[in-house]
Amino acid sequence: MDDARSDGADPIVVALGGNTLLGQHGPWTVEEQRDVVERTARRLTDALDAETDLVLTHGNGPQVGNLLVQQEAAPETPQLPLDVLVAETQAQIGYMLQQALDNERSRAAEVMTLVTQVVVDADDPAFDRPTKPVGPFYTETEAAEKPFETRAVSDGTYRRIVPSPDPVEVVEADEIADLVARGNTVVCAGGGGVPVVREEGLRGVEAVVDKDRTSQLLATALGAERLVVLTDVEHAYVNFGEAEQRPLERIAAADLRDHLDAGEFDEGSMQPKVEACLRFVEAGGECAIITTPDRLAAALDGEAGTRVVA
Amino acid sequence: MDDARSDGADPIVVALGGNTLLGQHGPWTVEEQRDVVERTARRLTDALDAETDLVLTHGNGPQVGNLLVQQEAAPETPQLPLDVLVAETQAQIGYMLQQALDNERSRAAEVMTLVTQVVVDADDPAFDRPTKPVGPFYTETEAAEKPFETRAVSDGTYRRIVPSPDPVEVVEADEIADLVARGNTVVCAGGGGVPVVREEGLRGVEAVVDKDRTSQLLATALGAERLVVLTDVEHAYVNFGEAEQRPLERIAAADLRDHLDAGEFDEGSMQPKVEACLRFVEAGGECAIITTPDRLAAALDGEAGTRVVA
Repeated sequence: MDDARSDGADPIVVALGGNTLLGQHGPWTVEEQRDVVERTARRLTDALDAETDLVLTHGNGPQVGNLLVQQEAAPETPQLPLDVLVAETQAQIGYMLQQALDNERSRAAEVMTLVTQVVVDADDPAFDRPTKPVGPFYTETEAAEKPFETRAVSDGTYRRIVPSPDPVEVVEADEIADLVARGNTVVCAGGGGVPVVREEGLRGVEAVVDKDRTSQLLATALGAERLVVLTDVEHAYVNFGEAEQRPLERIAAADLRDHLDAGEFDEGSMQPKVEACLRFVEAGGECAIITTPDRLAAALDGEAGTRVVA
Repeated sequence: MDDARSDGADPIVVALGGNTLLGQHGPWTVEEQRDVVERTARRLTDALDAETDLVLTHGNGPQVGNLLVQQEAAPETPQLPLDVLVAETQAQIGYMLQQALDNERSRAAEVMTLVTQVVVDADDPAFDRPTKPVGPFYTETEAAEKPFETRAVSDGTYRRIVPSPDPVEVVEADEIADLVARGNTVVCAGGGGVPVVREEGLRGVEAVVDKDRTSQLLATALGAERLVVLTDVEHAYVNFGEAEQRPLERIAAADLRDHLDAGEFDEGSMQPKVEACLRFVEAGGECAIITTPDRLAAALDGEAGTRVVA
């Protein structure tokens, strides 16, 4: 077993898209899921020096959707609120990632999965206009009977809709920093973190937080050298999907912000990734990268992906 | 906010019964669950000095059962194996405990919930004779079609049956010790830990580990001063449920072992608790306690519960 330990350098924060972990094509077997997770762990291992400290975050859209479908299918069991279900997905995905990473990287210190809470502002305007569809699809009649807000998402289909407030603070950031400093790889902030508001104490809220924004907040708090957002396209593109689409490669933050302000990125997918990268570099981070797991090694070498610098 | 930090003394390990967290009487609302968790957090806060370091473990029987019921009710979603579901319950229960404890105890350092793996021996004889019923109840016909072993549990009813191997090592014990040393309260080893076997790396197995045994293993590894097993009866009893039932109060390990060897404790409930307490004291622990959450404070003062000493 390789005995690599932390070299004390700043860690790298890698954010994995939820869809890169489950696929969007219906019921996967657990073997298929393990294959995907192990493949991701191998890509990370191939791309990172053994001594590089890694903090891994991940999405949870398909997974939290499945938990909602499952508990609605069994109304005789306790129906848990969204904050508890987000916590469950942190362990579900984290456990599989942790085991695969531990087996691939073979560092002396363990890979740890932490339940991670993220503080949001109770006055965040997002609470007045929910935007994120989650969970099962309903008919109009079913939707009208639900005890929560629903919205038509396509012809005749409805889904629950929840707020997506901005993350303000990762509650466990200090502990993550300490674990990293002692050589542990940390899987955390899954699904963007469990959203909580700070009152007299912490209280969970039914919302979802964008995982790329939380990953940036955490990366900045940790003084990470690099933030990497892994997704299913190799670059952020200008005019994506059109004839003249153009991949962005190495780009200065100011130039990227011009593209962002011009509305050139898809609101539901690339825009939050670009915003997270910009916030990271603007807050002093050295480099933020958007790419695929397969191109991670090349991207870290400056030869692939979109690489945002100051 | 109270600024109590670790006093550097040995921590106390408290194991909560899964039923003390959910109740056995059908579908609880999340408000009822939060009430139970908050009540437990208050009992712990009332009983422990602010500077006492706490490691909290917990059962998960009803909760992992509900996850199995839920995923079987939605066969169109991925059906996850038991090790992944145990990990999910660690976060589900841990998150609720963590928030309630953080709000009640108000220590400076966070309460952390860790996904915790426990190594079992691949050659443990338990794998040849599964004993633990889990998940939904089936008819004989349904049971015959399941891809896993089932067993009749009462007239005409069948359940899945899984092995319950002995825990050998808590994988994350060093990290738990470090977090405790820096003042964090740690919620871990939920459901007895996620059972894994050590091959070239770690691999999850479909089994359940007794949470009291894992709690003892962890308490001994941490050099804990006391192990407390909280359940729904105030004492271990000799001749429990009979006319001449007698509560055990302060008792020497050797005397308790005589009672155990005489088969005086119920195999499914009190016996593993008594065994865990004995192993803890025999391995050098100062005192192991069996009692209820309500009697915890008195038990720590030596005035309630069964208190096992050397």
